[in-house]
Amino acid sequence: MIEKNRITSELSDLVGAANVLTDSTALSVYECDGATLFKASPDIVVFAESTEHVSKIVRLANKFSVPFIARGGGTGLSGGMLPVNGGIIIALNRMDRILEIDVKNQRAVVEPGVVNLLLTQAVEDRGYYFAPDPSSQKACTIGGNIAENSGGPHTLKYGVTTDHVTGLEVVMPDGEIVEFGGYVEETPGYDLRGLMVGCEGTFGIVTKAIVRLTRKPQAYQTLLGVFETIDDASSAVSKIIGAGMIPAALEMMDSLVIKTVEEAFHWGFPLDAGAVLIVELDGISAGMRHQAEQITEIFNSHNCREIHRAKDETDRQNIWKSRKSAFGSFGRLAPSYITQDGVVPRTQLPKVLRRVAEISEKYSIPIANVFHAGDGNIHPVVLFDERDPDQCERVDAVNMEILTVCAEVGGTITGEHGIGVEKMDYMPLIYSPEDLLVMTTVRDIFNPSKLCNPGKIFPTTESYVKLGIESPTV
Amino acid sequence: MIEKNRITSELSDLVGAANVLTDSTALSVYECDGATLFKASPDIVVFAESTEHVSKIVRLANKFSVPFIARGGGTGLSGGMLPVNGGIIIALNRMDRILEIDVKNQRAVVEPGVVNLLLTQAVEDRGYYFAPDPSSQKACTIGGNIAENSGGPHTLKYGVTTDHVTGLEVVMPDGEIVEFGGYVEETPGYDLRGLMVGCEGTFGIVTKAIVRLTRKPQAYQTLLGVFETIDDASSAVSKIIGAGMIPAALEMMDSLVIKTVEEAFHWGFPLDAGAVLIVELDGISAGMRHQAEQITEIFNSHNCREIHRAKDETDRQNIWKSRKSAFGSFGRLAPSYITQDGVVPRTQLPKVLRRVAEISEKYSIPIANVFHAGDGNIHPVVLFDERDPDQCERVDAVNMEILTVCAEVGGTITGEHGIGVEKMDYMPLIYSPEDLLVMTTVRDIFNPSKLCNPGKIFPTTESYVKLGIESPTV
Repeated sequence: MIEKNRITSELSDLVGAANVLTDSTALSVYECDGATLFKASPDIVVFAESTEHVSKIVRLANKFSVPFIARGGGTGLSGGMLPVNGGIIIALNRMDRILEIDVKNQRAVVEPGVVNLLLTQAVEDRGYYFAPDPSSQKACTIGGNIAENSGGPHTLKYGVTTDHVTGLEVVMPDGEIVEFGGYVEETPGYDLRGLMVGCEGTFGIVTKAIVRLTRKPQAYQTLLGVFETIDDASSAVSKIIGAGMIPAALEMMDSLVIKTVEEAFHWGFPLDAGAVLIVELDGISAGMRHQAEQITEIFNSHNCREIHRAKDETDRQNIWKSRKSAFGSFGRLAPSYITQDGVVPRTQLPKVLRRVAEISEKYSIPIANVFHAGDGNIHPVVLFDERDPDQCERVDAVNMEILTVCAEVGGTITGEHGIGVEKMDYMPLIYSPEDLLVMTTVRDIFNPSKLCNPGKIFPTTESYVKLGIESPTV
Repeated sequence: MIEKNRITSELSDLVGAANVLTDSTALSVYECDGATLFKASPDIVVFAESTEHVSKIVRLANKFSVPFIARGGGTGLSGGMLPVNGGIIIALNRMDRILEIDVKNQRAVVEPGVVNLLLTQAVEDRGYYFAPDPSSQKACTIGGNIAENSGGPHTLKYGVTTDHVTGLEVVMPDGEIVEFGGYVEETPGYDLRGLMVGCEGTFGIVTKAIVRLTRKPQAYQTLLGVFETIDDASSAVSKIIGAGMIPAALEMMDSLVIKTVEEAFHWGFPLDAGAVLIVELDGISAGMRHQAEQITEIFNSHNCREIHRAKDETDRQNIWKSRKSAFGSFGRLAPSYITQDGVVPRTQLPKVLRRVAEISEKYSIPIANVFHAGDGNIHPVVLFDERDPDQCERVDAVNMEILTVCAEVGGTITGEHGIGVEKMDYMPLIYSPEDLLVMTTVRDIFNPSKLCNPGKIFPTTESYVKLGIESPTV
């Protein structure tokens, strides 16, 4: 970076020398996210403590034409906050205050560095929680959730982050401070709040958010069913949704996952089972038992060989542990894995999973499936050894074929991990050059200098070559 | 309009002469919407029968630099589709095909001219419906619902139109055809689908929509409570929500509405009641009776003097008729009325309604209140005689003061009617000049020539004068 010393000195004047890191050892902490496959080092990391800090840092970056990227917990899975062109990382971890809690109107006002789970902990004694629950919720920040529009296992009933954010304060890429949305749900004029959520940090930096608080459920009913085949379990899922029930979670594991989890942790799953389906109901306790009985009936009419209904909270936690332990058991199968993330219409699940099995066989790369069946969000876990270049090449082909199948059946290439740098190349699978041009035009309006989180989301000429699609001339 | 003859002739070549109207009597049908306060006549009305028609008409309008505006049922309440600068109205009523129904994945693909209720009727024998239910649903079109992001009495539980649209085909203001979103819920990249919903026709013309179908509830429980005061009924509302219940509807009427409705239709309401609250639960029948009992208890502990629980479907329909008959009874009070539309945080309802009563007294303009209490969406009905210029002037002041109060308590100036031409002047009450500049910049990107539905949403210099706010120099 040219003029690094001068920029560092001016940054120190703005926010204090203790808030500026330039030492290469300190910077190395900031060179990857939760996925580790991609790495890129910043030139400077600066901790902002207020909206004014963020605005001043952004104006300084503009003055020197240096890229800048906001960073929260660093738990992303698509490289969305990697400084691929170097520059300044604006760390928001010290902007971690909960500014207001208003349970009567079900709102909280937070700074972007508040860790997701800490907001829930701050309101749970009053009977509320913050609904978006990505697996990383102990470490990820609400600012990051907003940038990526994060989901979680409870997306089916509760929606994604955008459904839980009503207002934003944003430092725009030129340093201007603006507000989108507000305290109440309705947004007269254009829904720029909605546009900002999920923009992966390319339209500006959120410095304050008004979020929705959700009432904690009075009760749960959690059922685990062991099925002969994925098709049986998938039909049961369609039947449950078709009956008008909206479970809080509807999770499935395939035979390879069941076998691996069982051999590692001995939960008691039959080694020859085709699929395990976990259904959780939550809400008002009245009538829930009856719904659980309906689900039991549906299970029974779909060749379910074994049903376990959680007797109490400990039992319920054990069912969830068996599901969550899956990722911990994959080390038995291969030294490395990539969790793919695609979405398909629910009725296409059996077909898509058969195609995934064919792709696995074609490339001799094992794939395990653990996924959010309720919303058709598949997570094929692609197992390999990253030290073997030939395997890595085949994994690349596997990823592309899986995402192509998702796109072909009317689905999409990411459910909750985002595009970032990981999936830029695959965007032409779902968007035409005209669609992408509209998106980049909007990006260029917010971010004309392209200094705010550059090199993300959009395909390059190489992407089209890789996909074997003619590169657009628009 | 300059070159009207040439434009008419070229339009006839594109879509056939039978699809082009230029006769002033025929055009007069298109000079107002559902609110009638504002009028503006188009130069030409053209019926499009396909996406290609729309694209060609838009390109032609661009060639001649003539404004163009899409129109559906014409039932809007804020003048959103009025041709305030003349030009071409592109009527979409003949693009009224339901292209696909897929109940298993809970999706339908429709053209924009499909009347809202007809989609429900097309799927209800399979147990589904289209959830957004504006009062005009027998006449309004889904394209119009998308443009205005329409709500309805069931917004509290089911959300607004944007929650029920997953994908859009759009003719952009330059005639380009693009797609936003898709069949599944997730939208990688920017949420331009969400930006398009509620843009009031200023970013382009929706020519196809993929919408969500919702499972019909198995059962209803409908309760009507008569309360001594608005405050008692408001506290009951907070208590119901606080208990974790999400009723499908939570509607309130104040004493003036009760008295007027009772004198007109004799439903049996006590003439001295302070408020009537209607609560409707829907969903799975199991446990619903128990929830209705909980609501009865909450009513009883808030000075409710009388509770009526619907015994059967006829009884339920009668309760809803008593609510819906309110607007029909206002003719007894005054020759004209405007239904205001504002939103406030739920806990602010009692305070805001007291302020509305003070404003009514200050200007000697009667105001009746009938509103969606559950989401804080108030509808003060401002009663007057439009033949009396002095009253009209006072009504203008009343509107401004009511919306100012909504903005002051952290609310907003429209819940479901949109900005259009009606509320342009009030936008500075909730948005700073910087906020508005970001919005107009986005608008100018989609719509650089400003030919696509011009003269809407954004305040003018006169607006700032009217509000007594210094006009921005940005």
